[in-house]
Amino acid sequence: MIEKNLAPPDSAAAVANVTDIRTRRGKLVSSVITLAHGGGGKAMRDLIDDVFIDAFSNPALNTLEDQARFQLSDLAKLGDRLAMTTDSYVIDPIFFPGGDIGKLAICGTVNDLAVGGATPLYLTCAMIIEEGMQVDTLRQIVKSMADTAREAGVTIVTGDTKVVGRGSCDKIFINTAGIGVIHQDYKLGAHQAQAGDHILVNGFLGDHGAAILNARGDMHLTSPIESDCAPLHDLIQTLLKAAPHTRFIRDATRGGIASVLNEIADASKCAIEIHETKTPLRQEVKGFCEILGLDPLYLANEGKLVAVVPAEETDAALTAMRGHALGKDAADIGTVLHDGRPGRVHMQTLFGGKRIVDMLVGEQLPRIC
Amino acid sequence: MIEKNLAPPDSAAAVANVTDIRTRRGKLVSSVITLAHGGGGKAMRDLIDDVFIDAFSNPALNTLEDQARFQLSDLAKLGDRLAMTTDSYVIDPIFFPGGDIGKLAICGTVNDLAVGGATPLYLTCAMIIEEGMQVDTLRQIVKSMADTAREAGVTIVTGDTKVVGRGSCDKIFINTAGIGVIHQDYKLGAHQAQAGDHILVNGFLGDHGAAILNARGDMHLTSPIESDCAPLHDLIQTLLKAAPHTRFIRDATRGGIASVLNEIADASKCAIEIHETKTPLRQEVKGFCEILGLDPLYLANEGKLVAVVPAEETDAALTAMRGHALGKDAADIGTVLHDGRPGRVHMQTLFGGKRIVDMLVGEQLPRIC
Repeated sequence: MIEKNLAPPDSAAAVANVTDIRTRRGKLVSSVITLAHGGGGKAMRDLIDDVFIDAFSNPALNTLEDQARFQLSDLAKLGDRLAMTTDSYVIDPIFFPGGDIGKLAICGTVNDLAVGGATPLYLTCAMIIEEGMQVDTLRQIVKSMADTAREAGVTIVTGDTKVVGRGSCDKIFINTAGIGVIHQDYKLGAHQAQAGDHILVNGFLGDHGAAILNARGDMHLTSPIESDCAPLHDLIQTLLKAAPHTRFIRDATRGGIASVLNEIADASKCAIEIHETKTPLRQEVKGFCEILGLDPLYLANEGKLVAVVPAEETDAALTAMRGHALGKDAADIGTVLHDGRPGRVHMQTLFGGKRIVDMLVGEQLPRIC
Repeated sequence: MIEKNLAPPDSAAAVANVTDIRTRRGKLVSSVITLAHGGGGKAMRDLIDDVFIDAFSNPALNTLEDQARFQLSDLAKLGDRLAMTTDSYVIDPIFFPGGDIGKLAICGTVNDLAVGGATPLYLTCAMIIEEGMQVDTLRQIVKSMADTAREAGVTIVTGDTKVVGRGSCDKIFINTAGIGVIHQDYKLGAHQAQAGDHILVNGFLGDHGAAILNARGDMHLTSPIESDCAPLHDLIQTLLKAAPHTRFIRDATRGGIASVLNEIADASKCAIEIHETKTPLRQEVKGFCEILGLDPLYLANEGKLVAVVPAEETDAALTAMRGHALGKDAADIGTVLHDGRPGRVHMQTLFGGKRIVDMLVGEQLPRIC
């Protein structure tokens, strides 16, 4: 329904300058990040030219000025509302099975836009780098960002580079802010969940949280769990076409699906019931959680969404998601109840019991994203 | 010329939820930031409710969802182009004479939008906080952000909170990304500088850099230098009304005016000459630089701009700026030359000599913004 037909942003001058800078200046000499790379002078310019411009190269990347510009009339072709979001990524370790901080920084922000029904378009990229980082490590992260941005159909249009002394940050923190445009047909909101609606997820839960925890620890599982980190914009567009009356979509990141379900119950003043037997969990993740005493409902995901869909569109939604690479294990895990205490989420357990699924209290896992 | 007449953003649902959350949840219990405050669960929600919502309270702040939304038709009333920018702030110390990291995080991003001719509108706020920070310190920073945002006429519409362990970041890093709308009459660009244009600044240079360096060191000047940190949007609108053919405006932050002048010379393929005797420097800053062997042309500013204005509008521009609180010491410091080596900047010194003003090489002062 939505076609991307934006003209290149309004920065012809900047484009010309990219080339000038690239031909005029040499390759970066240092193999290690120094404080000078964040100083606003020649070293920073060289770093940007050599590491960022090469990877992010696109007509929108305005290297000379601190702002990117877009014609509002082009944006209006895609919908009626602009969506804006931001996230900082501080994940530890910065490379993990299934991804790295760069991929995560693109997927997370793309997903935050997409779950609102927006077509993600333009991202900013602001890095805080610890002095002493290898330039090649940074290059690898930036390449991962560029590859993921290409996959997600978004453009990195402006950025910022800060370098702090050794010990003043842990390797690298990345902020991406993003804008997208929401088509006039989509009006999603957690408060719209209604009794009878179904709760869908697009696949196995908790992979990201388990992967990170495993990558940090000493368990060395024989079949290591991979993060599910992925851009969900295309799956979401597929879902919305199949189930145009979808009430709400949310990616289940920090706090897991438990937190998303609680927010939906809270906003809609409804009760929600999910079923343990219908909730897709990989055997490895289940085992991992049992050993460590973790509840997979609270584990972070970076490629999983929760959708609230009216009963009559549930089958179509499931079929559509299962036909997409990122939704082939999609499941209908529960419903919004006609009765029950407003704001309450509970789970029917495997053994026929019922347990309350509350919001996460305390901290399950720091620096998960 | 530009009137702010935006309707409140499209988040009626979110507004309702702000109130619900505030009345339903209590005040924050902890006086110190813990990892749980970044965990995505109850503690984070309480921190956001208690510290951020109270301070940033506005109908646009969408607490339940990770994105803010705006009607494109409202944006289009202000101009034809959307501008987007981002900056991370890692300044050390976080409180300094004339401001703090919160004020800086608003001014910096407002200024990055405003120098392109945009009316700054909406900002995101993403914080990375070190475990162990006093909640009252955070509250003070957030209050400063809220006060400065109000002064600058911008709204903080969405955010992100991460907490990292002790020693994994230095106190607090803040990212703000911002959007604004550029009126159709304004077409600013560094490449447009032409021979004969004048180079204007809005007052004393280097205050911010000197203030930070002084705040860190042991010099304890009897008359401490204050940072010039200020939102320049209103001054810029005043300048553009008086000198509508202004070619280019840029805030002279990291790298000082030397870097801005070099970028203008580079982009326009012109030579630029400035005059030492016309360049406004406070006696304290001059003395400070002499003692430490620093060049004030490279010192960071956070409330100073460089404007390239055609000769015939220079008087009007200066008069307009001098009539504004943030431009009363505005000065005409030089010109774009008819001859000279393209891309070269030089200064006529006090003693009649001529010295090249190159881009900053290396690092003058880390963590200045």
